[in-house]
Amino acid sequence: MPVGNVNLVKLNAVKGIKIGITEAHVRYPNRKDLTVFEIIDGATTAVVTTQNQFYAAPVQLVREFVKTNSPRFLIINTGNANAGTGKDGLERAKATCQALAEKTGVNISQILPYSTGVIGEALPSDKIIAGLDDALANLTDDNWLNAARSIMTTDTTPKGHSKVVEIDGITYTVTGISKGAGMIRPNMATMLGFVATDAKIDKSLLQDILVKSVNKSFNRITVDGDTSTNDCCTLVATGQTGELIDSENHPHFAKIYEAIESVMLKIAQLIVRDGEGATKFITVKVSGGKTTDDCAKIAYSVAHSPLVKTAFFASDPNWGRILAAAGYAGIDFEQSKVSVSLDEIKICERGGLADGYTEELGQMVMKRPEITIAIELGQGQASDTVYTCDLSYEYVKINADYRS
Amino acid sequence: MPVGNVNLVKLNAVKGIKIGITEAHVRYPNRKDLTVFEIIDGATTAVVTTQNQFYAAPVQLVREFVKTNSPRFLIINTGNANAGTGKDGLERAKATCQALAEKTGVNISQILPYSTGVIGEALPSDKIIAGLDDALANLTDDNWLNAARSIMTTDTTPKGHSKVVEIDGITYTVTGISKGAGMIRPNMATMLGFVATDAKIDKSLLQDILVKSVNKSFNRITVDGDTSTNDCCTLVATGQTGELIDSENHPHFAKIYEAIESVMLKIAQLIVRDGEGATKFITVKVSGGKTTDDCAKIAYSVAHSPLVKTAFFASDPNWGRILAAAGYAGIDFEQSKVSVSLDEIKICERGGLADGYTEELGQMVMKRPEITIAIELGQGQASDTVYTCDLSYEYVKINADYRS
Repeated sequence: MPVGNVNLVKLNAVKGIKIGITEAHVRYPNRKDLTVFEIIDGATTAVVTTQNQFYAAPVQLVREFVKTNSPRFLIINTGNANAGTGKDGLERAKATCQALAEKTGVNISQILPYSTGVIGEALPSDKIIAGLDDALANLTDDNWLNAARSIMTTDTTPKGHSKVVEIDGITYTVTGISKGAGMIRPNMATMLGFVATDAKIDKSLLQDILVKSVNKSFNRITVDGDTSTNDCCTLVATGQTGELIDSENHPHFAKIYEAIESVMLKIAQLIVRDGEGATKFITVKVSGGKTTDDCAKIAYSVAHSPLVKTAFFASDPNWGRILAAAGYAGIDFEQSKVSVSLDEIKICERGGLADGYTEELGQMVMKRPEITIAIELGQGQASDTVYTCDLSYEYVKINADYRS
Repeated sequence: MPVGNVNLVKLNAVKGIKIGITEAHVRYPNRKDLTVFEIIDGATTAVVTTQNQFYAAPVQLVREFVKTNSPRFLIINTGNANAGTGKDGLERAKATCQALAEKTGVNISQILPYSTGVIGEALPSDKIIAGLDDALANLTDDNWLNAARSIMTTDTTPKGHSKVVEIDGITYTVTGISKGAGMIRPNMATMLGFVATDAKIDKSLLQDILVKSVNKSFNRITVDGDTSTNDCCTLVATGQTGELIDSENHPHFAKIYEAIESVMLKIAQLIVRDGEGATKFITVKVSGGKTTDDCAKIAYSVAHSPLVKTAFFASDPNWGRILAAAGYAGIDFEQSKVSVSLDEIKICERGGLADGYTEELGQMVMKRPEITIAIELGQGQASDTVYTCDLSYEYVKINADYRS
């Protein structure tokens, strides 16, 4: 059961994007597992990918292709990650792109492939190729929610968000979907995220927007600290609104950026809310650090600690575990300047127990499904925030059972 | 249930060390929770302590005292870590040392205090002080096994080892004990380890020996990646054998070093075998790296991955998770040169599936209680080894229940 409100708003169509979906039987029967995005000619596309050295075969192609050409199609399969598959994996990924290129009359390098699922097994590229006709036959601009569903693996709920902003009489739409529930500590990318806007945005500016907004969203979430081999986040600007936005100084830039970042943050947080076995949604806010990077490291150290995560699962205000995890982040600080709060309750002051804190107050906060841990370091002015969930029996069960 | 053989050899007395134990009711009734070591005058002592910034109050005193004086007593309590306790915690730790100093006629700085247990609660120093008379009354050289028992917290089994070596007609004894089962990823120290030898060793050489052997033992184990606030490893050379060993060139050095390191490694591995909820003992060996540090980082990345650990718990040869964890260690390597084996079964070659590997072979190995993951990077000549355990329901249960 995901934590908190995971009902989706209506996922608005984005002019210039059509989506087709089918059952290709990649791993399981009777489920949609193949999704094709068609992107209108003239759109710009930006991508960030995993920093895992064992990046999957499709990730390698995405990196190559997006450099040399403007993507016209995205092809996404679940059930098989095509990672740890060596040269053969690369051939199979290429074969699916080649088949789609032939069917649509575009160049192979205009097709970006994405795979997610089990690692180390051969991609059944023949099945994917066999499914292409059907996916192409049902291309429609109204398929975002279905796509959110068809890219799920261990996810229990589809993830998407949509925003409409009006600026100077122009209506801009931003819609995005994501998937992921485990193996989540994206590093410069998420599991899989696809976000599109009908704005017309210069390609290099679009890349800046993506990197910046990913760093505030997908790169600030963690479920289990594992960084996937297949993480990719893709941002498409279809250019259907006419007005070219080519710099941060353009009068429309700020609002559009804000809409994109808020969609990203929402679909990133939905991944944490649906974290494998999650029962709590935890925000870890570190402030008063010397640098943002210091704050992020401490926040991640707390967010990754199995001892912190199991204490939250048990609603046990064992705050010493939070201090301990902050302390081993590898960042120098004076413990006597540190204070820690859980929501409105101050637990720790000057490195020791806060005046007036009682176990009952701690317990009261820990029982909530959504909790903010605020750590004030007292060493500087920087701050950063990371989102995570607790660690439950269910996490072990899901990951001990996955594949069987 | 600990993994594998955890029966202890006879823990030989070390001439110059006496140990007294009592029930001080620090947290629970009816259990030995206070241990006092008496060290003969003229001994040398070396200590390494946690790198956690939230080091506990006793750790601060150990660091100060060991610099200025030769320890004559160690005082160890379980049930309360005296960490995250600010200035008050420091006063309470000092009070216990002061009381013992007065009772024994030594200087306060000749007493090293150690605490382990729950973090963030006030140390009941009055109870500890009240227990000192009884602990001093039963000081004996034959108490090593009892001491191993009395320093346990969530440990299910006492941890100790002993070696006797004869060199040129002199019989040297090395005996050590340790405790720890969770919050285990020591960094320059273990949870708590106490090792003594009757050899006479120059103080600065003893420190070198300790640092070197800790780096091969306590600093190469991980249960959950959490580094404790209280980690300390203490090595005492009582000097009762007469012959002064003052350099690595001394003819007795090599054999004594080997005995110390092997005792350390044994009691470090016992911590992993007794890791909270552990059902498997896993050795992660990374070779073919450019530097030892690269290899250690990759080994730790694999050893920490919740996805790898749950796969081992499930006996699921989901080797893609091993690749993925190796890949996000932050170390550059070419995946096409990497091979991975589980015990004698080669799973991955040139970054892809190895010829002849079958799921059945993988399954066969994964069912074993002790498994070696060997990762050959093919980039250089360095290697390193880390020891860990799997992640089970039981780990979550223990850590969600601890304190209640």
